[in-house]
Amino acid sequence: MRVVSYHPRAEEFSWTFGGVPPVMKVEPGDIVELWTEDAFGGHVRGPDDVVSKVIQWPFVNPQTGPFFIEGAEPGDTLAVHFVSIEPSREWAASTTVPLFGALSSTTRTPSLQEPLPEVVWMYDVDRARRTVTYHAARGDWTVELPMDPMHGTVGVAPAAFEARSSLVPAEHGGNLDTPEMRAGTTCFLGVNVEGALFALGDGHCRQGEGELCGVAVEAAMDTVVLIDLIKGRVTLWPRLENDAYVMSAGSARPLEDAFRIAQWDLCTWLSEDYGLDRLDAYQLLTQVAESPVANVVDPNYTFVCKAPKRYLPAGPAYGGMHAVLKETAAVYRATKH
Amino acid sequence: MRVVSYHPRAEEFSWTFGGVPPVMKVEPGDIVELWTEDAFGGHVRGPDDVVSKVIQWPFVNPQTGPFFIEGAEPGDTLAVHFVSIEPSREWAASTTVPLFGALSSTTRTPSLQEPLPEVVWMYDVDRARRTVTYHAARGDWTVELPMDPMHGTVGVAPAAFEARSSLVPAEHGGNLDTPEMRAGTTCFLGVNVEGALFALGDGHCRQGEGELCGVAVEAAMDTVVLIDLIKGRVTLWPRLENDAYVMSAGSARPLEDAFRIAQWDLCTWLSEDYGLDRLDAYQLLTQVAESPVANVVDPNYTFVCKAPKRYLPAGPAYGGMHAVLKETAAVYRATKH
Amino acid sequence: MRVVSYHPRAEEFSWTFGGVPPVMKVEPGDIVELWTEDAFGGHVRGPDDVVSKVIQWPFVNPQTGPFFIEGAEPGDTLAVHFVSIEPSREWAASTTVPLFGALSSTTRTPSLQEPLPEVVWMYDVDRARRTVTYHAARGDWTVELPMDPMHGTVGVAPAAFEARSSLVPAEHGGNLDTPEMRAGTTCFLGVNVEGALFALGDGHCRQGEGELCGVAVEAAMDTVVLIDLIKGRVTLWPRLENDAYVMSAGSARPLEDAFRIAQWDLCTWLSEDYGLDRLDAYQLLTQVAESPVANVVDPNYTFVCKAPKRYLPAGPAYGGMHAVLKETAAVYRATKH
Amino acid sequence: MRVVSYHPRAEEFSWTFGGVPPVMKVEPGDIVELWTEDAFGGHVRGPDDVVSKVIQWPFVNPQTGPFFIEGAEPGDTLAVHFVSIEPSREWAASTTVPLFGALSSTTRTPSLQEPLPEVVWMYDVDRARRTVTYHAARGDWTVELPMDPMHGTVGVAPAAFEARSSLVPAEHGGNLDTPEMRAGTTCFLGVNVEGALFALGDGHCRQGEGELCGVAVEAAMDTVVLIDLIKGRVTLWPRLENDAYVMSAGSARPLEDAFRIAQWDLCTWLSEDYGLDRLDAYQLLTQVAESPVANVVDPNYTFVCKAPKRYLPAGPAYGGMHAVLKETAAVYRATKH
Repeated sequence: MRVVSYHPRAEEFSWTFGGVPPVMKVEPGDIVELWTEDAFGGHVRGPDDVVSKVIQWPFVNPQTGPFFIEGAEPGDTLAVHFVSIEPSREWAASTTVPLFGALSSTTRTPSLQEPLPEVVWMYDVDRARRTVTYHAARGDWTVELPMDPMHGTVGVAPAAFEARSSLVPAEHGGNLDTPEMRAGTTCFLGVNVEGALFALGDGHCRQGEGELCGVAVEAAMDTVVLIDLIKGRVTLWPRLENDAYVMSAGSARPLEDAFRIAQWDLCTWLSEDYGLDRLDAYQLLTQVAESPVANVVDPNYTFVCKAPKRYLPAGPAYGGMHAVLKETAAVYRATKH
Repeated sequence: MRVVSYHPRAEEFSWTFGGVPPVMKVEPGDIVELWTEDAFGGHVRGPDDVVSKVIQWPFVNPQTGPFFIEGAEPGDTLAVHFVSIEPSREWAASTTVPLFGALSSTTRTPSLQEPLPEVVWMYDVDRARRTVTYHAARGDWTVELPMDPMHGTVGVAPAAFEARSSLVPAEHGGNLDTPEMRAGTTCFLGVNVEGALFALGDGHCRQGEGELCGVAVEAAMDTVVLIDLIKGRVTLWPRLENDAYVMSAGSARPLEDAFRIAQWDLCTWLSEDYGLDRLDAYQLLTQVAESPVANVVDPNYTFVCKAPKRYLPAGPAYGGMHAVLKETAAVYRATKH
Repeated sequence: MRVVSYHPRAEEFSWTFGGVPPVMKVEPGDIVELWTEDAFGGHVRGPDDVVSKVIQWPFVNPQTGPFFIEGAEPGDTLAVHFVSIEPSREWAASTTVPLFGALSSTTRTPSLQEPLPEVVWMYDVDRARRTVTYHAARGDWTVELPMDPMHGTVGVAPAAFEARSSLVPAEHGGNLDTPEMRAGTTCFLGVNVEGALFALGDGHCRQGEGELCGVAVEAAMDTVVLIDLIKGRVTLWPRLENDAYVMSAGSARPLEDAFRIAQWDLCTWLSEDYGLDRLDAYQLLTQVAESPVANVVDPNYTFVCKAPKRYLPAGPAYGGMHAVLKETAAVYRATKH
Repeated sequence: MRVVSYHPRAEEFSWTFGGVPPVMKVEPGDIVELWTEDAFGGHVRGPDDVVSKVIQWPFVNPQTGPFFIEGAEPGDTLAVHFVSIEPSREWAASTTVPLFGALSSTTRTPSLQEPLPEVVWMYDVDRARRTVTYHAARGDWTVELPMDPMHGTVGVAPAAFEARSSLVPAEHGGNLDTPEMRAGTTCFLGVNVEGALFALGDGHCRQGEGELCGVAVEAAMDTVVLIDLIKGRVTLWPRLENDAYVMSAGSARPLEDAFRIAQWDLCTWLSEDYGLDRLDAYQLLTQVAESPVANVVDPNYTFVCKAPKRYLPAGPAYGGMHAVLKETAAVYRATKH
């Protein structure tokens, strides 16, 4: 277990998956301690910092990386285990963004109506209490919400020579915006280019399912990931595993296609690693799948569909990679204390 | 508290919401003990009972009712509290249905491909253990799943002189297919015609979120509902409340519109009953909403979006109707034992 | 050739397809001279007559009929040939309608934005010149447009005991809002109930493809239709035929499903009546289909897809019904002059 | 008027817009004579050349270019006038492609059904008669269709550091697949990077509206374009102009969003260059727009919406650029004969 650290300088962030040279090489099995800036580039710090003033498009959602994974080749699968994700500041922010969000017309669903007003909500982050505090901006309601830190954006370089904005979720991962991307979870991503070119960012102290207005409780994060590689196994869409669930993430528009992709991929996965006939998997998922929508705001919408492992035949998935990484993570954590 | 009972005769089922005369009158405050047939009309009893053989369209998804609620008028809201929902047989069934289901081309998303094969899965229902048992039809996996009984179809007569098939979810409720419609929940439905004309059916021993293949663990049910009326309050889309959540159900295509409707309606509800500014509600829901998709298979797709009451300002919703009905239900249950 | 006339009294309009008793019986082969009110019920007569003031929902889009066609039974196909469609007043009207139209949030695609302003545009109708004149409401541009009269709403009672608002297009026809429904065209509709219960309304002096704001150049119409019946032939979706094209109308959301339905139905039709293999039809349509979108505003969106008859093998469609009806229409017209 | 010629060598094709160095520099005002390979890379030459055998993904839809336009900077608009587009071989090809096409499940709308069979249709191209001949592959129907040559793919490098596959249509143009991209038309594209990086390919001898199966009558083309630049004017979405129409191309999913974008952009354009109030433009387009769907098969679907210039106030669009280019093209053509 090698531990490496990386803290990007201001000019080192990347704004796309693909089309960017790596910042660093890591070996399969390495633990990487890193820092990610928030999706606003740290520019929203108070109620007057509306996005149209403080952000210069397209410099939004900076990514830390990409990391070149030694030995990764197209046709392999990258496994990324989230060891820890911790907010690195005592505040976090959310806003409305003009022509963005599920209850607004957008550049893709345009209307002739006036856009919504730009409003900023600042959150207090209490790392000891594990909470973030919401304050109404146009009223006086204040409430503590449990912290549940996650990364909205996690991905590799896409296939077919493409480079995609860090705002886009798709087959390569990217801006999935799912609360399932939390510590203790392993994320499997298909490798499309040599070195995989893994990057991540867009930390959220928490978010609701669907990320309604398009902006979660955005925060810079101190994050530790454990990276590994499964040679010679193709993964078409991002998959996640934690102790209780195997999960597939489909990203598309309209939203029913994101759902179809995630469920189709789960059927395929249950067939590959659990030996179920695909129609039997279809039936079982009909009765047991949990389907927390991830985002209904990004250029593609994302659904994460989950199969509880307790209802599945003996696996394990990906040869037991999740259990192995979890154990290594425990060793690492023991070392740190 | 008046208790009335109703067990439909074979010729008394209804196949639409609207366009059907009432089977019975009930008063606000009445408890109704009733029975519902399963969505197959009870015709799928073994592996050879494929839908194309045993069901004659459009005689699918029979409804018990409609009940005429005394005093209900357009502009009122009907409150239906589910006291209990219990499978009435020792088996339940699910199937693939040709040109239906989320991973098949359909009559609305047609293709030139061959349809999927028709397969039946029979479930054992164990009311003592509170489980249903899945048996693979094309392999040998068997697993016990927790029973979580619910009604897929709950509604009133629609507005604008329409009559809608019992397969359709919309503003009037209908075939919402949400696992949230379980015992302990209160459902609020806007009244569109005199007497409201409430009906229900389509019992499920359980279903996954999205009801992937379109057919849950279908079962006849012994159900007890407590019915009440809120005069002079308009409800646009079905709303649900249990001890922990207020929830809105949006039904539309594409699926993002169902999500938008549910979240828009929650914003409106949080403004009406909890005093939040609508943009503040939008922000709060962005961080706390849970959004378990209900169905991605019916003529409209349905999303249920949920706001945890513990994060909301003081309510209560609909003047505290849910708490009142819950208490009455407790009295009723005490009487029965 | 029997000619019957029908001019509805104010209380005789219908507001749904299905759920309404017939106003009159007609025989296959009858010519019906009738009058239809405009979609506003004639209430928009000047710039101040905004819909929110002059229309009381759901009394919008009044239909003339339904007509009971003697001998029509489920499984048959009704053929309706449009002999003539002529505006009956010297003005016509269009408006924006709050929460309706393709460039506005709607009740199905809700947003938190303010609705668009309500504006009325009055058109001069010049039957001699065959034009309607547009006048900008917020500027000074005036332009004459060619008259191209059509019916937005043409349908029969739906299947499965449903009654659908006259605003809805679907399998039964209804509010298709296609400019192809003009004089000289034959419309084929599947019969779902005894007598078919044919009705029509929603005359447009003209409309663009897509009916962008949701409201065409709305006008009362003097219309002559010739009605006939094809026994024992099922028609799933509305089909149209004129001298140059066979056309199918698909109605669904999202819009790609309306396109899929229309093209799938054309493939089926080219196989049924023109002997093409379905994959060969798929290929031919890929290269020759014209696909003028009908409406992108109604509860279902509608696509009309057209196959030019000059590129097809020998037909004819529906045993040559269109040619027969056209000839009868010519005889009728000769009689009138 | 400088005339330059370019014929790509096999290794010079590009497979994305963006992320590729220019093959050549051209000046605004230059005429470029060039050649484009067909979308199959020329590999489909007979009935056994099914795509799964002869194409190695992602080497599909090769583009000629990109050309670096001297002086082009972000915020400018590129004007490309199609002087001529002529098939360069005596045959052309179309096929079904597995998991692609509007009447098939796809990688984005997956199902558990078997894919459609792969079939090839070869077309005879008769440049003298201006026809292509269709031969049924599974029957014996043969028919001559008018040639109407066009480019399916025309675009510039996208914004935000992205590189997009040549299969994708979006704001940067790309794989729009509209039959409107024919000789005599001027295409306006917003410039996102220095030099614009213009490329084109995917010639079609003709295609139907919607490009149903996803593959038109694919052909290599000898094409002449005249390139010019409008400094300091932003163009958000591809726009086209011919002698009769101004047209906007919106690309998105679901298809209604492509329609909304195209119509919204036309409203904006009619306001910018024709002085119409945007609501007045909305109304006028409601009555006069033609909306031939371009493709319902690509990663984004594309709608082209057209406003007839004869119904508009005095323009002209883009300062009369189309007329100027058309005149230059006439001079060039005169020179060649």
